[in-house]
Amino acid sequence: MTANRMWGGGFESGPAAVMEAINTSIDFDRRLAAEDIEGSKAHAAMLARQGIIGKADADAIRKGLDAIAREIQEGKFPFRREYEDIHLNIEARLSELIGEAAGRLHTARSRNDQVATDLRLWVRKACAQADGGLLALQRALLAQADKHAGSIMPGFTHLQPAQAVTFGHHCLAYVEMCDRDRGRFADASRRLNESPLGAAALAGTPYPIDRADTAKALGFERPMRNSLDAVSARDFALEYLSACCIAATHLSRLAEEIVLWASPAFGFVKLPDSLTTGSSIMPQKKNPDAAELVRAKVGRSLGAFTGLLTVMKALPLAYAKDMQEDKEPVFAAADALDLSLAAMTGMMAELAAEPAAMRAAAEKGYPTATDLADWLVKTLQIPFRKAHELAARAVQRAHALQVALVDLPLEELRKIEPKLDSTVYKVLSLDASVSARTSFGGTAPARVHEMVAYWKEQLA
Amino acid sequence: MTANRMWGGGFESGPAAVMEAINTSIDFDRRLAAEDIEGSKAHAAMLARQGIIGKADADAIRKGLDAIAREIQEGKFPFRREYEDIHLNIEARLSELIGEAAGRLHTARSRNDQVATDLRLWVRKACAQADGGLLALQRALLAQADKHAGSIMPGFTHLQPAQAVTFGHHCLAYVEMCDRDRGRFADASRRLNESPLGAAALAGTPYPIDRADTAKALGFERPMRNSLDAVSARDFALEYLSACCIAATHLSRLAEEIVLWASPAFGFVKLPDSLTTGSSIMPQKKNPDAAELVRAKVGRSLGAFTGLLTVMKALPLAYAKDMQEDKEPVFAAADALDLSLAAMTGMMAELAAEPAAMRAAAEKGYPTATDLADWLVKTLQIPFRKAHELAARAVQRAHALQVALVDLPLEELRKIEPKLDSTVYKVLSLDASVSARTSFGGTAPARVHEMVAYWKEQLA
Amino acid sequence: MTANRMWGGGFESGPAAVMEAINTSIDFDRRLAAEDIEGSKAHAAMLARQGIIGKADADAIRKGLDAIAREIQEGKFPFRREYEDIHLNIEARLSELIGEAAGRLHTARSRNDQVATDLRLWVRKACAQADGGLLALQRALLAQADKHAGSIMPGFTHLQPAQAVTFGHHCLAYVEMCDRDRGRFADASRRLNESPLGAAALAGTPYPIDRADTAKALGFERPMRNSLDAVSARDFALEYLSACCIAATHLSRLAEEIVLWASPAFGFVKLPDSLTTGSSIMPQKKNPDAAELVRAKVGRSLGAFTGLLTVMKALPLAYAKDMQEDKEPVFAAADALDLSLAAMTGMMAELAAEPAAMRAAAEKGYPTATDLADWLVKTLQIPFRKAHELAARAVQRAHALQVALVDLPLEELRKIEPKLDSTVYKVLSLDASVSARTSFGGTAPARVHEMVAYWKEQLA
Amino acid sequence: MTANRMWGGGFESGPAAVMEAINTSIDFDRRLAAEDIEGSKAHAAMLARQGIIGKADADAIRKGLDAIAREIQEGKFPFRREYEDIHLNIEARLSELIGEAAGRLHTARSRNDQVATDLRLWVRKACAQADGGLLALQRALLAQADKHAGSIMPGFTHLQPAQAVTFGHHCLAYVEMCDRDRGRFADASRRLNESPLGAAALAGTPYPIDRADTAKALGFERPMRNSLDAVSARDFALEYLSACCIAATHLSRLAEEIVLWASPAFGFVKLPDSLTTGSSIMPQKKNPDAAELVRAKVGRSLGAFTGLLTVMKALPLAYAKDMQEDKEPVFAAADALDLSLAAMTGMMAELAAEPAAMRAAAEKGYPTATDLADWLVKTLQIPFRKAHELAARAVQRAHALQVALVDLPLEELRKIEPKLDSTVYKVLSLDASVSARTSFGGTAPARVHEMVAYWKEQLA
Repeated sequence: MTANRMWGGGFESGPAAVMEAINTSIDFDRRLAAEDIEGSKAHAAMLARQGIIGKADADAIRKGLDAIAREIQEGKFPFRREYEDIHLNIEARLSELIGEAAGRLHTARSRNDQVATDLRLWVRKACAQADGGLLALQRALLAQADKHAGSIMPGFTHLQPAQAVTFGHHCLAYVEMCDRDRGRFADASRRLNESPLGAAALAGTPYPIDRADTAKALGFERPMRNSLDAVSARDFALEYLSACCIAATHLSRLAEEIVLWASPAFGFVKLPDSLTTGSSIMPQKKNPDAAELVRAKVGRSLGAFTGLLTVMKALPLAYAKDMQEDKEPVFAAADALDLSLAAMTGMMAELAAEPAAMRAAAEKGYPTATDLADWLVKTLQIPFRKAHELAARAVQRAHALQVALVDLPLEELRKIEPKLDSTVYKVLSLDASVSARTSFGGTAPARVHEMVAYWKEQLA
Repeated sequence: MTANRMWGGGFESGPAAVMEAINTSIDFDRRLAAEDIEGSKAHAAMLARQGIIGKADADAIRKGLDAIAREIQEGKFPFRREYEDIHLNIEARLSELIGEAAGRLHTARSRNDQVATDLRLWVRKACAQADGGLLALQRALLAQADKHAGSIMPGFTHLQPAQAVTFGHHCLAYVEMCDRDRGRFADASRRLNESPLGAAALAGTPYPIDRADTAKALGFERPMRNSLDAVSARDFALEYLSACCIAATHLSRLAEEIVLWASPAFGFVKLPDSLTTGSSIMPQKKNPDAAELVRAKVGRSLGAFTGLLTVMKALPLAYAKDMQEDKEPVFAAADALDLSLAAMTGMMAELAAEPAAMRAAAEKGYPTATDLADWLVKTLQIPFRKAHELAARAVQRAHALQVALVDLPLEELRKIEPKLDSTVYKVLSLDASVSARTSFGGTAPARVHEMVAYWKEQLA
Repeated sequence: MTANRMWGGGFESGPAAVMEAINTSIDFDRRLAAEDIEGSKAHAAMLARQGIIGKADADAIRKGLDAIAREIQEGKFPFRREYEDIHLNIEARLSELIGEAAGRLHTARSRNDQVATDLRLWVRKACAQADGGLLALQRALLAQADKHAGSIMPGFTHLQPAQAVTFGHHCLAYVEMCDRDRGRFADASRRLNESPLGAAALAGTPYPIDRADTAKALGFERPMRNSLDAVSARDFALEYLSACCIAATHLSRLAEEIVLWASPAFGFVKLPDSLTTGSSIMPQKKNPDAAELVRAKVGRSLGAFTGLLTVMKALPLAYAKDMQEDKEPVFAAADALDLSLAAMTGMMAELAAEPAAMRAAAEKGYPTATDLADWLVKTLQIPFRKAHELAARAVQRAHALQVALVDLPLEELRKIEPKLDSTVYKVLSLDASVSARTSFGGTAPARVHEMVAYWKEQLA
Repeated sequence: MTANRMWGGGFESGPAAVMEAINTSIDFDRRLAAEDIEGSKAHAAMLARQGIIGKADADAIRKGLDAIAREIQEGKFPFRREYEDIHLNIEARLSELIGEAAGRLHTARSRNDQVATDLRLWVRKACAQADGGLLALQRALLAQADKHAGSIMPGFTHLQPAQAVTFGHHCLAYVEMCDRDRGRFADASRRLNESPLGAAALAGTPYPIDRADTAKALGFERPMRNSLDAVSARDFALEYLSACCIAATHLSRLAEEIVLWASPAFGFVKLPDSLTTGSSIMPQKKNPDAAELVRAKVGRSLGAFTGLLTVMKALPLAYAKDMQEDKEPVFAAADALDLSLAAMTGMMAELAAEPAAMRAAAEKGYPTATDLADWLVKTLQIPFRKAHELAARAVQRAHALQVALVDLPLEELRKIEPKLDSTVYKVLSLDASVSARTSFGGTAPARVHEMVAYWKEQLA
């Protein structure tokens, strides 16, 4: 953003200054430099192959673009606001480096198909980056799941302890979410993988270009089938952003849990020093800053999606300058996701679970009440709804006596249902409760171990 | 929504009234009735097959559920707010119809996995519904494309005429967008197609259930692998909503164009009377109401996505009551998309293009200037950037003389570039310009006809 | 929403059915009935006063409208979809009731200014409703603050205990937020309080109407100064929705805290039975459903704001049918806020704080470490940053010895800073820490009592 | 944003690098430098006045802060990422400049109240900046309104010509919108104008500070009344963002109109060269880039509001690190609004209306049909609904004969309503139609001139 507000500022020099400020995109679209060069090289090579430009010109262009790539990598490229955007900056520099041949590069091309190509390439890379980040997080979660397949913790509904589960089982829930997130990025990447290059301004071109050739050179599956669509479509960016939003929502849920678990009220985990901070005023604090920032960053993704969709709403075909507002939301969401995945991977890799604290919390809240109800159904053939009422009465009694369900004397239980016998105690302990949940996908440690094995193979 | 504000209102009777008002969902989740019955029948059949409930009970449950389905279809089902939600309404009615056996249906199940199952089934249907609606719209667009493969209209960038295209080509751009939209719904449908049923409250169950069996009966590909994930995941709803948002954005763009085209300023189309209205005060008006409403309805989808994502942000596992707020956004977006697709399909099926008006508009704005530049490049080997400058000067001259480029005398052209000769006129007419754009995906009628043929096969 | 998806559905009968479904608004805009009648009565009275219609006609209209109002109140009004919206429904009914005179009511008026007037009146009422709801919540919060001005609880940052505060002080923080929320609704109400009536379709009217008269009759401060603006402005609805969003955010924060406090991990409060529920499968649960729903409902408001803003984005003047999509978001957000305020008021009125549990939690986490640092600064003139380091070392030592700071032996403290003496213990207890924070707005019970007194006067 | 994705990148060095990347805010919060210094100076002066720090220390601090302010203004300040944020950067630099005294500045203060103070001061300035920008735009609009108070153009509903209005009247509609926008910023500025300083971390402080003193020094009306609220409130930022959103919506509407008007299909205006661009491929184009970018930038504001609200949703008190995500949305929206206002002001100041084209367009579409209906009501006492039908028949007849209404022969009119006489022609011309709309706020040039005079006085 060009307006410097730190010490005031303004546009005293009139409309020209305003126009430069609002129109110039080089400050952010420089991030498309690598993709722009990649696209231009493919385009020039094709033009030469098709005889549209001479081989010598094509060679000069290729070498010039390689030199520019090096300049950028080495931080020596002169980004200039007077050349407005990354495309014109590179073209202007190319002209300085190789002279007139540079003027032939734009043959049979427009900035409209050029920028669409660049952004698709960038988003394709960003999808791959997200996939890598999610995979890393899955592995960190899996390692915890492996270690804690049998570590009992309270399973919450409504943040009330409901039934005991294992910490490993809980970690695997996030492995599943990440898996679907990866699927969304893969689908987005596959769907966007068509080449707009050669659509020119909007209508195609009379030059005998070979769009299949440039598509292939750039790793696209095919050229896009409609030139108007090629330059005006931004659904690929929206789809990417929606995948970011959903993944960020998952991360915000995990982050919330980490904040809860790290609170002394829960005390389920110790966080790594590297991802926490102290306080400027309270020396005793160890704050889960990284988790809080991850929790917050879903706002960035949602803001990006909302913002870009608002931009695209009701835009007539084909290109409109409004679309220049597509890049910053994409970059912002990509950065936020990158950072969030890295932070959560570090967090899950380095946090230390506290099984004793987890188990102690699981004891609270009568988490085996459902097991009692199930026993009544299975052993005494009482309909579930009735069994549920009886179990509720047992809980009330245990609460009055201040004991766990497993410690409620048999005579107390028999006041509630005379047919109850001592075999019921086998299902009332935490360990029994957890071990009994052997249905597919259940929290029984044996099941969790199976799933750990499954994921080890998948993520190998 | 339960609060009646029409004539004031309130909650004079205290917290109980408030709780009923905020907690009750039967007014909207009744739309899950069919899915709830379908899920319960599959569950009961499995319970019997596994010996968890008796065959007689299972038969009674099945018949009772079928009776309830009929009652609902016939509008005779007693939806009752005191039973809070659709699940309890159906269970209560089942109890009235078949007595005690009804109490066994909820064995090895919880409302948490039940509602997750219901909503997945509903969203799966909604994806299919969206696919059908998009297909219908594609066909209507394709019919126009077929009819107008060669009808010349201005292709706009920045709402300025840029290069001539054909109306058929323009219609096909939307066929492409719809194709990707269908892909998104298909991916969402495939990804959500796992069964949460049997996850119970959150931890699985000790009953010897067969989750693969119920999954298969309900058309799911497999049971979900993690019970915590099964009851707490709503990414499937978010993904559906994001696909709605993106499709609605495409529809809003088409709607905007229809509003523009129907304006006397453009006059490109005549809209069907059935989808327009008159004015209460201005008798001469014919307003594109349906198109405007479609343009607006993207707000509904975006609101739904934004709203549900906000609900899910930072929710700890597993189930929280917040998730009850998942259904209304999904229903609202589905309804908006349904209506929008139906309206746009009707619009595209019935609008009458006005090729004469389109062609007249295309003549304005020197749309063959690019062709002149291209001719200079191709014929005189002038670098593109230089050719662009020369063409701009020709436009200025034509503008000064108030003629089209094709009518600019050769001596005028030669003042700009002496090597220009009369063969240039072949590229300066609208028809020549359009016909020349034969690159793959270009607007040349021959290309458009090819694409029409391609899509006829795809959409057959 | 008109599409019935419960058992399938569709628009087999073609565009007319689609148009009815998408265009008809009577299913939701019937909520404007009272405002529509109010507006029409004012308009008719003015028309008669200005001699534009006859007195007899005006009388007939007034009586007819009163009869309609009664019909609606008694649930006898025939809402008919063939009359599209509330305005035409009422006009059609009026025609049935009083005959030809009804046709004179629409003189010098259009649906454009009519609906703008209706919605402004409705939103003005909604602002008043929000104000009343917020006031009720403030009073409930204030009662808790009064009762617990001195009840010590941990003050959290990052959900880590930081410094002790009082529960009363915490409640008053929300009183402040509600106060600003009320200010926003008041400002919105004041700003929207201009009359669009008489702007007619968009350009004003040649009839000698008296807009100041109708404005006054409807409680508006003045007629709007520009007829185009009058019919096309919806910023008043957006401003109302933004105030709803911000208030809902505050409520979501309080709701989150209630969910936390009610969790056994905290145990700070007992929630009223009336606003909690049990579990269908876990008999021991007492779930904070109402709080969770309030936490979620911020999504509804944000969805409404986002949705309407998307509708309004880039709409050219004056009226466009897109604006029909303004009402449902407004109603949805208003309902959500109403319910949320009622639920939170009930919650705060009826929850029972558990001071013992709060105090116990406050003891954890060395909340008086800052007090130690402050003592070092004040008593020994050690710079704050240095004092902070010393306090941190004391915390580490206390942690190693598993004691509270107040129980750390003097010799241990002197190892850290030799000049420390026994007077330091006066600041290391929880009570001392809280009582010492007497700066304006601080948590010292004396200060909290002052603020309770201040608010009692304000809210009387 | 710290992650460099241009050429790949990553966090190979592990969690510490991740933490630096996600936690560091100096890259963006440096924009709070002036406010941070202002706040620190006020705090130090108060500490000295209250005897909490010595006068010599206070002097050293003040001089050091002034030196830092100069360093920043001159671009010499060493912003360092190792000092995380602007507060620690300034404090570290102060320590380098003045030694130990710097350590006393943080007495009785925390970063929590410090950053809340800084951001309030910044947003207060941003409100003033928005007000100035809106005022400039109002003046530019007013100048056009003055010039074109009588220039007839079509007034559109549904983008169909409805009734004729004047361009001046149209411009004044936006003056009204800007006026309400200014009101929203003024209200936001007034409401936020309370000082959080002295709330310390969250609970107040035991030091005998004078919060009223610092509040006054910083231009706040009063200190905030509750320390928890002071550090945890961000509704002021949300309210500012909502005002940005609504103002940006207005600007997007004006921008859309400019894009339409500049299209050859309308041809109502000529845009200044300074705010348009040419095409890289189409030499004849003159594109309304600035208007398109303004139209798009509403997405930025909405994204910012949505994003920050998502961050704040369900955050428990008091401070959480999530709130660090408050600044970038605020800066982004402020920059977008600044630029948009400057661009639209330039646009409205420099565009040239084309009254001839406007009038020609107004002739289309029978814009005086309403006048005919009104004449029938007023002259012949025909009820409005009936008159409307007759006027519609006249339009149909004129359309069939291809003439304007004013050119329809009297015998044709009499076929529709025999009592029609030649006096009707006085209301059927464009000029008569416009001049007749003399109701308050109507488009009659006399009325427009009155309003121009009113606004000249208001905006003087």
